[in-house]
Amino acid sequence: MKNAEVGDLAMLATLQGKQFIFKLEADAMFQSHQGVIRHNDLVGHPWGTSVQSHLGRDFYFFRPTLRDILLLIKRRSQIIFPKDIGYILLRLSVRPGGRILEAGTGSGALTTALAWAVGSEGQVISYDRREDMQDLARKNLLQAGLLDRVTLALGEADQGFDAEDMDAVFYDLPAPHLYLDQACACMVNGGVLGAILPTANQVSDLLAVLHAKKFTNIDVCEIMLRFYKNIPERLRPADRMVAHTGYLVFARPVGEA
Amino acid sequence: MKNAEVGDLAMLATLQGKQFIFKLEADAMFQSHQGVIRHNDLVGHPWGTSVQSHLGRDFYFFRPTLRDILLLIKRRSQIIFPKDIGYILLRLSVRPGGRILEAGTGSGALTTALAWAVGSEGQVISYDRREDMQDLARKNLLQAGLLDRVTLALGEADQGFDAEDMDAVFYDLPAPHLYLDQACACMVNGGVLGAILPTANQVSDLLAVLHAKKFTNIDVCEIMLRFYKNIPERLRPADRMVAHTGYLVFARPVGEA
Amino acid sequence: MKNAEVGDLAMLATLQGKQFIFKLEADAMFQSHQGVIRHNDLVGHPWGTSVQSHLGRDFYFFRPTLRDILLLIKRRSQIIFPKDIGYILLRLSVRPGGRILEAGTGSGALTTALAWAVGSEGQVISYDRREDMQDLARKNLLQAGLLDRVTLALGEADQGFDAEDMDAVFYDLPAPHLYLDQACACMVNGGVLGAILPTANQVSDLLAVLHAKKFTNIDVCEIMLRFYKNIPERLRPADRMVAHTGYLVFARPVGEA
Amino acid sequence: MKNAEVGDLAMLATLQGKQFIFKLEADAMFQSHQGVIRHNDLVGHPWGTSVQSHLGRDFYFFRPTLRDILLLIKRRSQIIFPKDIGYILLRLSVRPGGRILEAGTGSGALTTALAWAVGSEGQVISYDRREDMQDLARKNLLQAGLLDRVTLALGEADQGFDAEDMDAVFYDLPAPHLYLDQACACMVNGGVLGAILPTANQVSDLLAVLHAKKFTNIDVCEIMLRFYKNIPERLRPADRMVAHTGYLVFARPVGEA
Repeated sequence: MKNAEVGDLAMLATLQGKQFIFKLEADAMFQSHQGVIRHNDLVGHPWGTSVQSHLGRDFYFFRPTLRDILLLIKRRSQIIFPKDIGYILLRLSVRPGGRILEAGTGSGALTTALAWAVGSEGQVISYDRREDMQDLARKNLLQAGLLDRVTLALGEADQGFDAEDMDAVFYDLPAPHLYLDQACACMVNGGVLGAILPTANQVSDLLAVLHAKKFTNIDVCEIMLRFYKNIPERLRPADRMVAHTGYLVFARPVGEA
Repeated sequence: MKNAEVGDLAMLATLQGKQFIFKLEADAMFQSHQGVIRHNDLVGHPWGTSVQSHLGRDFYFFRPTLRDILLLIKRRSQIIFPKDIGYILLRLSVRPGGRILEAGTGSGALTTALAWAVGSEGQVISYDRREDMQDLARKNLLQAGLLDRVTLALGEADQGFDAEDMDAVFYDLPAPHLYLDQACACMVNGGVLGAILPTANQVSDLLAVLHAKKFTNIDVCEIMLRFYKNIPERLRPADRMVAHTGYLVFARPVGEA
Repeated sequence: MKNAEVGDLAMLATLQGKQFIFKLEADAMFQSHQGVIRHNDLVGHPWGTSVQSHLGRDFYFFRPTLRDILLLIKRRSQIIFPKDIGYILLRLSVRPGGRILEAGTGSGALTTALAWAVGSEGQVISYDRREDMQDLARKNLLQAGLLDRVTLALGEADQGFDAEDMDAVFYDLPAPHLYLDQACACMVNGGVLGAILPTANQVSDLLAVLHAKKFTNIDVCEIMLRFYKNIPERLRPADRMVAHTGYLVFARPVGEA
Repeated sequence: MKNAEVGDLAMLATLQGKQFIFKLEADAMFQSHQGVIRHNDLVGHPWGTSVQSHLGRDFYFFRPTLRDILLLIKRRSQIIFPKDIGYILLRLSVRPGGRILEAGTGSGALTTALAWAVGSEGQVISYDRREDMQDLARKNLLQAGLLDRVTLALGEADQGFDAEDMDAVFYDLPAPHLYLDQACACMVNGGVLGAILPTANQVSDLLAVLHAKKFTNIDVCEIMLRFYKNIPERLRPADRMVAHTGYLVFARPVGEA
């Protein structure tokens, strides 16, 4: 059973559920309101066990899951939520070694998940028109150890993308209906196009162009995730939930034989 | 741009949306109510284009996505739905090269998705107590070209699993609360346990034991997926939807340091 | 404890849940695949008990609830569902003695509920442009014993309504945004306008005019109703549910002081 | 067109949507952070128009709807929400002149709606075991002008109710399964029993006894209400919503003929 090593991504969680993710480095310190823990004391420590801060407070010591990483990503914009990301990965048919293009990058949540899923043999190309957002995404990807498989590119979707033979294209942009030709130009024949859109009006705009341009398998959907309180003798949903993140649209272009 | 080759997994879809998935083989024939197409005519054909049957009916010719494969899996039991599978992959933190244990196999839908996501470097071990179900799952995995990374094992969960250092364990069993020790025995420290359960009573039973056995990060949730009709000037949800597949439960065991 | 009398509205339900609603009449016969029951045998019979057909099949004998009546209404168009009707009554603030105008009548489901809720002192005016629909609604209302408080009127909404001082107006029309002045003209100051609309595009159209015409308290919502299987030791939602009936819109006009 | 009179229930709403409900009284003052308005200036004022406070701030002047009243009720406990109340009224088949028994009263939200719906000819009997809650409910009902048709009674459900021939009984109690005989004892034959329950475990308990005691038409359901932002060119659901209030259970007792 392997224990933690320098360079591993690690997570400490308080008993109240507050979580911290960081990379283990020789001689570094983890600091929180509940006390300090030396990285050197975490290196060699078994995953999935408790550790104590210098104040005697207990923390759980885990490898972060992909969802942990996504929820703790540093953000300056609304991120795509895990409930949507899981389904997007499935619909885009992302696989180890796959090649996915995304526009725009935002804080890099979906970028992170795509990079995770394509693995070290795969490639993610992510465009954004804002340099500050890409700098943030770069930091998030570096922190998660996934930057090596991502190409961050600065640019507007209307200029097209410096990419070809991508398996799928995902648009997190205000007006994806304007850039369908650009998506097709960089995708393999019969690839998958996906988009997330906050408003119904945007969905209508996109659908109109998808139909006009002879896309097929056009699906619009939304995902609602409801958590439950975890008390066995009083099982019930949480009081409140996220009502909406975005509508998801998927389609496949049909070319000339 | 690569075209279809012998050995590729291919999908033909009618204009009405009926889909067929099969492996391209020299000299084989695709047969349907809308006519016959020779595999030889598909080999070398560009993906993402139309083809005609001998009756002159149009078909779309695509590589199937993971979701296409899941929805067309041959089944003798309720399969886990794509809406749940996407989220399960995320919560189990499945990655290329990962190692996941599942019990029970059923028709092999989740097995297929796990095998897809761990890639050729990963490993999926899937237990079921019924030989007929495993035979069906084996056929489905073989058909999808994913059998090489899956070990199908016959056995009851109460006997434990011939596996170790698995990253995560997923239970699609009637009484997962009885087999938590067996899951922990084959998982790495701090792995992730997941389960899908149709009834609230089963969730209560599982929660009681998860709390008693000092699991942490205990989450119960359910995912609702709602499709929309894809007409831009009349955008509205479909008339009916799936109301329930199962409650999803996730937790992480905490061991002794 | 009163028993059934001639003229009462009665419901017979099979053990499998099939329901029949009819008015008790001297010497009439109830006929079904599970046998015949003479109305004379039901008159004087206690409500809430079993009765047997001439074939020895058991039926439950109940007064129908408003929901029973709504679900069994004869229809030639999509009716408004009970889940929506309950909330509409609340939002329109319907009360005994109240006065409500509705356009269009359709098969008369909402009309029936409005007539029920305003009571014998209230008034419902219901417009439709199709005579055949109003004939159907008239039959349904007569059958339910509620026709006395309903005025069915033939006409187009753009011609306005022969009514004044209505407490609220409800539109079940394709383009309610075209008839807001007509609604205001027949409502009391500060009344409530409601509408049900199947598509998001229609909602956008209506919202634009509501904002332009200085309406306030503009609410858009949708109601999802999920049933559960009623087995105590296997409590779980039903497999499928209605995904969409319509978006509900409510607003109040603000006049000049 | 009638204008406001002394004794009317009135609502003032700020442009930001904050609402205040009160009874118009000669010489009284309405006071808020946005200024003071004399009741004498509201008496004779047309409903559905604007009024200004002494600070020059605009308020909308409306008769409150039933929903307005429910949402502004003074509460010391979780109230039943309008989304549930509308459906409960329908399922209990509440009508003008009807007779409904409720236990427990709580802050009186459902009591208020029942009193509204049965009208001046109807009767609502509401039990609670806590005197302080009933005092609060009494104030709320008095404020809404609905106390005349409500009998508030102090008592435990296990002692039964001083009532007979009620059309329906509604339980908002932690353990309604213990008091089914008491409900039947005060209901007409074939009445309707309803209950709201926060947890799945309580629903299972109730279902077990409903089946054992030969109830029929046993329905369990939940209602989800999702609001939309009301911007026509950016139509989308609100960000967050209520995920759960309670499970609703309805059933009808079958007696001996």
